[in-house]
Amino acid sequence: MPKINAQRLLDDLRKLRTFGGFGAGVVRPALSEADMESRHWLKDRFADAGLNASIDGVANVFGISRNEGPALIIGSHSDTQPQGGWLDGALGVIYGLEIARACSEDPETKHLAVDAVSWQDEESNFIGCLGSRSWCGTLAPDAEAAAVGRDGTTLANALRAAKLENVPRQRIDEDRYIGYLEAHIEQGAYLEDAGEQIGVVTAIVGIRGMTITFEGEQNHAGTTTMARRRDAAAALFEVAHRINQEFPKVADERTVWTIGQAKIEPGASSIVPGYAEMALQFRDQDEAKLDAFEGIVNGLITEVNQRGKIKASATSARTPIRPSKMDKRFQEHIAQSAEALAPGKWRSMPSAAGHDPMVIHEKLPCAMLFIPSIKGISHAFGEDSHDADIVAGCQVLADATASILKDASGGG
Amino acid sequence: MPKINAQRLLDDLRKLRTFGGFGAGVVRPALSEADMESRHWLKDRFADAGLNASIDGVANVFGISRNEGPALIIGSHSDTQPQGGWLDGALGVIYGLEIARACSEDPETKHLAVDAVSWQDEESNFIGCLGSRSWCGTLAPDAEAAAVGRDGTTLANALRAAKLENVPRQRIDEDRYIGYLEAHIEQGAYLEDAGEQIGVVTAIVGIRGMTITFEGEQNHAGTTTMARRRDAAAALFEVAHRINQEFPKVADERTVWTIGQAKIEPGASSIVPGYAEMALQFRDQDEAKLDAFEGIVNGLITEVNQRGKIKASATSARTPIRPSKMDKRFQEHIAQSAEALAPGKWRSMPSAAGHDPMVIHEKLPCAMLFIPSIKGISHAFGEDSHDADIVAGCQVLADATASILKDASGGG
Repeated sequence: MPKINAQRLLDDLRKLRTFGGFGAGVVRPALSEADMESRHWLKDRFADAGLNASIDGVANVFGISRNEGPALIIGSHSDTQPQGGWLDGALGVIYGLEIARACSEDPETKHLAVDAVSWQDEESNFIGCLGSRSWCGTLAPDAEAAAVGRDGTTLANALRAAKLENVPRQRIDEDRYIGYLEAHIEQGAYLEDAGEQIGVVTAIVGIRGMTITFEGEQNHAGTTTMARRRDAAAALFEVAHRINQEFPKVADERTVWTIGQAKIEPGASSIVPGYAEMALQFRDQDEAKLDAFEGIVNGLITEVNQRGKIKASATSARTPIRPSKMDKRFQEHIAQSAEALAPGKWRSMPSAAGHDPMVIHEKLPCAMLFIPSIKGISHAFGEDSHDADIVAGCQVLADATASILKDASGGG
Repeated sequence: MPKINAQRLLDDLRKLRTFGGFGAGVVRPALSEADMESRHWLKDRFADAGLNASIDGVANVFGISRNEGPALIIGSHSDTQPQGGWLDGALGVIYGLEIARACSEDPETKHLAVDAVSWQDEESNFIGCLGSRSWCGTLAPDAEAAAVGRDGTTLANALRAAKLENVPRQRIDEDRYIGYLEAHIEQGAYLEDAGEQIGVVTAIVGIRGMTITFEGEQNHAGTTTMARRRDAAAALFEVAHRINQEFPKVADERTVWTIGQAKIEPGASSIVPGYAEMALQFRDQDEAKLDAFEGIVNGLITEVNQRGKIKASATSARTPIRPSKMDKRFQEHIAQSAEALAPGKWRSMPSAAGHDPMVIHEKLPCAMLFIPSIKGISHAFGEDSHDADIVAGCQVLADATASILKDASGGG
């Protein structure tokens, strides 16, 4: 099995942290100067590792093995949130680099085709998963034409500023690849709470959003009796609270739902609200549960409408994201490697946050590995993981990489 | 009994409507040009009626009878909402004028002291009930110094523009008066719905406001499990809905409560809310009920706090307005007059909206009479009442005026 170099791994992670470094955190949004500098640095590291290194037209960085397939491509994204942590994305990118290096250094694995990648804009400065969508051929031209970054720059201008407007965009070679692997920090606290080191991701949860609206009648809060009122906010409060009472009957311990926005109009203490709306989002790895939640909401809406006072409706607030199942065989390889390196200290678990495999799994079998996040902190400067966990995760994924590729090429 | 002149009453009401007239409605906010023009016109009408007419330093218009007391003062306000109806306030002012005229024309009542008044700024352009507060000596100097109209003019500048800065402000002569009477449109639909003509007001409801806040912890809506969450909005929805379930157990058919404002922070569909707050207002004529409502809210807040996840609190959002009881004896006089003129077509009822007697009842016994509002419309251009109801209401109040004053002077 390939032996990763722990010091080299940590050194490269810490070097990547300096691009856009800000205190303990990183400010390196997609196509910013810091992002492009880091991507050129990464391209050089890929080249040093003996890979065919390139930056494509959306600034994906590829390090392609000179070995013939069957190949695995391993990586993540090196862009960050506007105020991001140092490991979100970066961890998986440097794992790809280190696993490619470790495999090439071991006589038993040097023939394996291990490619490394850093996708562009997973964090949605312009378009979430821009880089992996471009590679998979699922980037919608109209979405690209309309894309504007958080600072107001259009995507086209940002690509021009990065000198990428005439650089070709690479497309997936489906004949070469048997799959995509990505490691990531957990962004939650399950592993830390349980004292475990490795999470084998079963699926990336599906996400649905609903906008629920209530139309009543605006009126004087003194002279309008309760019997006459058609109070839109009262209906919202009822439906919101009953969602929070009903959903647990369907949910498991991993299911989450959030009412994060509510608006009441006209919003004056002496006026009976005539209109109210709220945003509900729910996530689960099981599509049947997501359907059941929609059913609960629609049942509550129907009940409100049947009373005849408030006109309520619920509509999809976003394009639903279907649960992305990770490849079962890949999961088994990772689980075996985890059990070998950290016996009893791993678990299977879904990912509650979104990742590039949501896009890529439509083209290739995918798998993900999680390492513990200290206190579950994520999307914040305080994000961190212990060195020992960073190193162990990389070794587990390296072992799984080798065993998947050996299996695929008929070796053992 | 004095006989009012229906045509003169309606003519004067329609004339007053022309000052600031706007379509079917009126735009005559306190101290506007239209307001001051109407007050000078009114002063002349008071003088024509044989009253000592004056405009005081806050533009209250007084028409004082030359007869000695015991006196009643009768009126309302002639300023309007920014987009007001033609009868809100105006009705009661012209009733005062017409009742003073009718009494002076009847040999049996010409010796009675009936004074008429139009208070300034009941509708709170600068300070709600400015005129009656000034007359009662309860206008706070710091509130006056800070008062700014809806158009940004200070009260001091508006008084200067109206040439009132050196005009004395009249103060209540407590030896002269035995009470204050005011007629008003109902601003609700109880009378119309019941086919009744007269409401005898029992009390002006008290109003309390509470701001209820919830502090939780802002978090990622994907990776934060339900068990770990401290969702401020979920607590708000629960308390709001339970208020709407618990209050009816204490309320009577007149009690009203409103949650007209709610704020959720940060207000994003993918973020568990860390903070939420809402405004609750409740009104009742019975102080014990208002206390009971506060008790219910405080009980819910305590329950939330005892769970240890959310820090909830409830504080007074406004200076509480205590219920203003109308004088029982005056109510009986009005009820007897109503029964005589419109047998079975009157009722006792509280006022859900505020009026100058909230201020004046601390100095003098007060009574109010309501006439029906068509469809209950108020504070809007569409406000209206039927001529027959306008006329009947004035005659009832005239009859009650005469009988109260005869009683007070030992006559019969």
